[in-house]
Amino acid sequence: MSTPKKLKIGLIGGGPGSFIGAIHLNGALMDGMYELVAGAFSSNPEKSKKRGEELMLDPKRVYGSYDEMFAREMELPESERIDVVVIVTPNNFHFDPTVKALKHGFHVALDKPLTLNYTEAKALYHEVKKSDKLFLLTHTYSGYPMIKQAKQMIAEGQIGKVRKVYVEYPQGWLYKLLETENNKQAEWRTDPNRNGLAGCMGDIGTHAFHMAEYITGEKVSHLCADLYIKIEGRPIDDDGVVLLRFENGASGVLMASQTDTGCENNLKVRVYGEKGGLEWEQELNNSLTVRFPGQPAQIFRAGTGYLGSLAQENTRTPAGHPEGYIEAFANLYRNFARCIFAEHAGETPKKEWQDYPGVEDGIRGMAFIDHVLKSTASDIKWTPFVVEK
Amino acid sequence: MSTPKKLKIGLIGGGPGSFIGAIHLNGALMDGMYELVAGAFSSNPEKSKKRGEELMLDPKRVYGSYDEMFAREMELPESERIDVVVIVTPNNFHFDPTVKALKHGFHVALDKPLTLNYTEAKALYHEVKKSDKLFLLTHTYSGYPMIKQAKQMIAEGQIGKVRKVYVEYPQGWLYKLLETENNKQAEWRTDPNRNGLAGCMGDIGTHAFHMAEYITGEKVSHLCADLYIKIEGRPIDDDGVVLLRFENGASGVLMASQTDTGCENNLKVRVYGEKGGLEWEQELNNSLTVRFPGQPAQIFRAGTGYLGSLAQENTRTPAGHPEGYIEAFANLYRNFARCIFAEHAGETPKKEWQDYPGVEDGIRGMAFIDHVLKSTASDIKWTPFVVEK
Amino acid sequence: MSTPKKLKIGLIGGGPGSFIGAIHLNGALMDGMYELVAGAFSSNPEKSKKRGEELMLDPKRVYGSYDEMFAREMELPESERIDVVVIVTPNNFHFDPTVKALKHGFHVALDKPLTLNYTEAKALYHEVKKSDKLFLLTHTYSGYPMIKQAKQMIAEGQIGKVRKVYVEYPQGWLYKLLETENNKQAEWRTDPNRNGLAGCMGDIGTHAFHMAEYITGEKVSHLCADLYIKIEGRPIDDDGVVLLRFENGASGVLMASQTDTGCENNLKVRVYGEKGGLEWEQELNNSLTVRFPGQPAQIFRAGTGYLGSLAQENTRTPAGHPEGYIEAFANLYRNFARCIFAEHAGETPKKEWQDYPGVEDGIRGMAFIDHVLKSTASDIKWTPFVVEK
Amino acid sequence: MSTPKKLKIGLIGGGPGSFIGAIHLNGALMDGMYELVAGAFSSNPEKSKKRGEELMLDPKRVYGSYDEMFAREMELPESERIDVVVIVTPNNFHFDPTVKALKHGFHVALDKPLTLNYTEAKALYHEVKKSDKLFLLTHTYSGYPMIKQAKQMIAEGQIGKVRKVYVEYPQGWLYKLLETENNKQAEWRTDPNRNGLAGCMGDIGTHAFHMAEYITGEKVSHLCADLYIKIEGRPIDDDGVVLLRFENGASGVLMASQTDTGCENNLKVRVYGEKGGLEWEQELNNSLTVRFPGQPAQIFRAGTGYLGSLAQENTRTPAGHPEGYIEAFANLYRNFARCIFAEHAGETPKKEWQDYPGVEDGIRGMAFIDHVLKSTASDIKWTPFVVEK
Repeated sequence: MSTPKKLKIGLIGGGPGSFIGAIHLNGALMDGMYELVAGAFSSNPEKSKKRGEELMLDPKRVYGSYDEMFAREMELPESERIDVVVIVTPNNFHFDPTVKALKHGFHVALDKPLTLNYTEAKALYHEVKKSDKLFLLTHTYSGYPMIKQAKQMIAEGQIGKVRKVYVEYPQGWLYKLLETENNKQAEWRTDPNRNGLAGCMGDIGTHAFHMAEYITGEKVSHLCADLYIKIEGRPIDDDGVVLLRFENGASGVLMASQTDTGCENNLKVRVYGEKGGLEWEQELNNSLTVRFPGQPAQIFRAGTGYLGSLAQENTRTPAGHPEGYIEAFANLYRNFARCIFAEHAGETPKKEWQDYPGVEDGIRGMAFIDHVLKSTASDIKWTPFVVEK
Repeated sequence: MSTPKKLKIGLIGGGPGSFIGAIHLNGALMDGMYELVAGAFSSNPEKSKKRGEELMLDPKRVYGSYDEMFAREMELPESERIDVVVIVTPNNFHFDPTVKALKHGFHVALDKPLTLNYTEAKALYHEVKKSDKLFLLTHTYSGYPMIKQAKQMIAEGQIGKVRKVYVEYPQGWLYKLLETENNKQAEWRTDPNRNGLAGCMGDIGTHAFHMAEYITGEKVSHLCADLYIKIEGRPIDDDGVVLLRFENGASGVLMASQTDTGCENNLKVRVYGEKGGLEWEQELNNSLTVRFPGQPAQIFRAGTGYLGSLAQENTRTPAGHPEGYIEAFANLYRNFARCIFAEHAGETPKKEWQDYPGVEDGIRGMAFIDHVLKSTASDIKWTPFVVEK
Repeated sequence: MSTPKKLKIGLIGGGPGSFIGAIHLNGALMDGMYELVAGAFSSNPEKSKKRGEELMLDPKRVYGSYDEMFAREMELPESERIDVVVIVTPNNFHFDPTVKALKHGFHVALDKPLTLNYTEAKALYHEVKKSDKLFLLTHTYSGYPMIKQAKQMIAEGQIGKVRKVYVEYPQGWLYKLLETENNKQAEWRTDPNRNGLAGCMGDIGTHAFHMAEYITGEKVSHLCADLYIKIEGRPIDDDGVVLLRFENGASGVLMASQTDTGCENNLKVRVYGEKGGLEWEQELNNSLTVRFPGQPAQIFRAGTGYLGSLAQENTRTPAGHPEGYIEAFANLYRNFARCIFAEHAGETPKKEWQDYPGVEDGIRGMAFIDHVLKSTASDIKWTPFVVEK
Repeated sequence: MSTPKKLKIGLIGGGPGSFIGAIHLNGALMDGMYELVAGAFSSNPEKSKKRGEELMLDPKRVYGSYDEMFAREMELPESERIDVVVIVTPNNFHFDPTVKALKHGFHVALDKPLTLNYTEAKALYHEVKKSDKLFLLTHTYSGYPMIKQAKQMIAEGQIGKVRKVYVEYPQGWLYKLLETENNKQAEWRTDPNRNGLAGCMGDIGTHAFHMAEYITGEKVSHLCADLYIKIEGRPIDDDGVVLLRFENGASGVLMASQTDTGCENNLKVRVYGEKGGLEWEQELNNSLTVRFPGQPAQIFRAGTGYLGSLAQENTRTPAGHPEGYIEAFANLYRNFARCIFAEHAGETPKKEWQDYPGVEDGIRGMAFIDHVLKSTASDIKWTPFVVEK
């Protein structure tokens, strides 16, 4: 095999006012496995051009639309053409560019949630499944090394059968009607047409749901949801809680809010099993608290030699040199790249590298949104959780 | 008026194997306002006698039963007789000694929950109401100075209208069937005949419920409960979650567990309002985190000059000299004593001193147990919360 | 043997404006082993009388001076007379009442530092040594259970030979010339005639020095001090650092300040040995961080079953129910009482009970002050540390 | 002006076994301002080649030595040639490649400390000064946004005149003779010929020294050092403390160790002034604790809108999305790039961008090493700190 070459990214979205587009790039570029070569940054050609300049791109590869990007890139020799399409648009522009990118033969990295709604999700699920291209859904938090460590410890039975999962995601930025104050993020995320019908639960509740299933390896079987619109005049939920039951009998509580006034972004997850417990929160992301009865709590730390292979493969620095959110993104992108390189080389990637979220996670997240909305509308306590594909 | 004399305590319960009896005494004695002079520590006279010796009591005032204690103390001159009965027995011995103590003219300090069941609670409620004696129910956590501070800040409108309350109480000590391993605490607390029909929710869920209402000043109007028996063979719940709705429209989540393996006792409460948020946890009990949007979080600290009167009246040390759980107890007992002294002197106690939990809190707690059990048994999501008296 | 009776305290000092007097009482009374029966609270008889009333004492036993207290108490029958004299006066009134109390046959509990100066200390040392009464010097911080645990782990060799000790005691309350603002605490503590010649180093540096030697069991052999007067107009030091060398070859850094603006009282100690390290700070007083190379840090917690006997004998509550500063005092007082009871009973107290600070600690503390002042005045780096007795 | 092009990096060092080389790349690449195009990764050509393959470089631009790299790159058209040389070799290979790179017209980013010894440092100082190329010395910790915030707050007088600085850097990885166990990092860092004559103080003490001066804006005038070899058989210090005096009258304590067994890398700095105090530690790198007397402590957080311009220019994510060590590196590299771009464009870069460490910091660091060694060898307490250039 020849030396692999860096993967060429074509970016869709991420124009002025976007927060997440730049973060995707930070994460993708950090490890030197990708280079950004093309983009359709905005539906406004002027804005797209300006963003291309900031990113020091060849102006010829800054496009006015993703359709144009696909068409023009296909005209380039394969060795120059983009390899991976990264999509960081609002949710109403997830389905279409993803399907087209796959059809043009590009790998796709897509920001969560999978689509605008469950119907699109089911269609996209099959598109991805039948494609031979790789697909990454950026449930960022599953990229943290200490989350990986927790997942591995649970999978190895270190805390015994899981009995309880708490996951909470408290934000406060929408504590007032920010969408009327010329804030682009607030505008689209509270607009059902661009965001979908679940606001807070769609945006961050899906992260929490993914975390609960990812870390435990267990699947939700029933849920009982209680969503709220805390700010008068907002069309979709900005706060909520979902009780969970898992197939193995465990119970769970999932809390998400964008109106917990003053809160930042401290995603927290706690899992308790027959033999022990694990606790993690994003503000202390390089630590994992491990509890066993009758023993001192242990603080497992990123970058140490005693961690399992999943954490080891998802870190860069020795203990005490904090990695963070961007590195969590970088872990997703690095694993994705390693799998693409392996595929190009006809090799099987390490199982640790294959551990990045994809379309199975994506459709479960959209099913979560669907069921949470149904449960909220129902007087019956428990709604069975069934994923249609 | 003459100088007040220390209040004389007669203790019921708190024999060998009791945890909470000694703590009540630590709290009551610390400030020099009470002295222990009599007790019926155990239904086993030998044990009662032994405990009396440990406590350096006059053997003549160590009794074999509370009935004996009441009878014999009444024979003493009023100036020697006990003033306050402290009751720290299992829940099935809350109702009877309380009623009798009041009828004999003693003030009563009773460990929570109020009674074994709701029926007893309603009866006791009226007994206390019609008595002219004072009554303290030791919901300890409401004695912490930073909880007092939070309560005052919310009452003063500093965080605006309350929108959301999280309260959680995770313990892990019952993660296995400890009640079969000769553990007295586990035995009675998992025995419906001595503890009542709600296990974890009765023992610590009632503390969490009290905290939610105490700190916010808001009343629960509806709840949706999900209780579990996580350990096979246990007759009553050891884990659960309750969704709350408050009369003012706020929502809440109350979580309590005794099977969160490895957890100690880190009661945590968070309240978010229109203008700000407050966060407290017992492991950092001398701090209160105060959040306002667009500002740095502020760490309010016990013992400082900038706190309100409620906190100021419930502390002993300057900032940085940690007080704890025993001092929270001591605050309840000190306020109770101050009110008794005021009554004896024909004065009105400060409103800060009157801020200790009593029978109104007690009956709400028993109603909480009752409704939580009903809700768990129901398929309907929301159960209205109505307190019968 | 007959049942022991509570120890009767006569308190010297602790009048209005005293902070530490009330804390001593909280600590002494909490466990029901002492009762306050007499006092000479102030050299001002009116103030003394007023304080006696607040404390609900018999007015006949509230005295205008300690000389009067000693004389009058000796006239009482032995069974009514005070047993223990507690002295909480400024440092210039440590020597005289202690000597007299011992000579009258009372046990003595004295607030630190031992005396006003080294000369008095040497004299008092011999008075205590030749007395058959027990003597407690309240170096409070050695009463914390997790400090006891650290001491025991080091003594047992769990971290190997000690190589390094950091101890710091940062306060900020004297960040300005508070002594000119009618603050009694600031007045006497910055007055060399009442406080002694070392300000910050005498007040809290001696606590830090005691901690360094207590926890490690090692003795200082040399020191290099650098004291400062940070606030113009103050006659004695309010900030400083002392480099330490220990007899076993370990090195140390001791930092104390009363001008670290905004700091409260977060005494912190860290010890590193050949095999591991231990870290403790007062703000998290119920935790001890234990580090071994290549392993997760362990958080040892007060009230757990895995602690050693020293910690077990110095706690009251189960894990997760925080004890604090007052309980640290209470531990000193309880151990002192247990030793007095044992002596009265002709028994040998447990070695864990004997572990309270006394006159050996006191004279070392005064030698520390003396050497620190000498070293500060010297251009030579290292001053040998030699305790004269 | 035309759109700037990415800066082309030629890397010296960073072969197998290097920790810091990969981190420099992560930091430099993250923001898309640099691309790695060439390297001389090891003096062993095979190793260099292998590393080049891992980094997906054109094999023609992977060189066997930096001399070869300079020569061959000069043969390339200017538009293809490297722009910036990044040097991550052991200290004995800092001087020569830096001088040569500058002479060939390349900008230089050099890992700290500046050189092997003070003599080299003085020579290099003049080489950099007389060059028209830009020079970055990677004192990483000055790249953290909350350190920038602290610096700005102090510069603006928010805490008043600085009185006290504590800076500590505790590591434990050299708690045993790791250099005999085939550990490359330990080998060169304890070898005076490759590392220089100060071990711990050279490696991490220089970081702490830089932090103390950087954050306060004050210059050290005198020091008193106490260095130790804690592990028998090691030729240079692995532990030490340095007392500091600053030109403005402030005092300081600098502690660094590589034998604090079990410690990771928790650099911590605390500054107290006349009006307030600031505290930061790397384990909580996105927070800055701000203390003012009589007020709650405030937790300033990275990514918020209330921070000053220095912090704002050195962050990527909104509050609550943790950045870390790699982003601190990235901040140095991004500012360096912005200044290079500005120079290329004939513009003056923002003052916030110019705030990266350079040769002035470097020579002070080498003077620090020199004075610390002299002070340790001296019996006199204070050594004046004079930087020769």
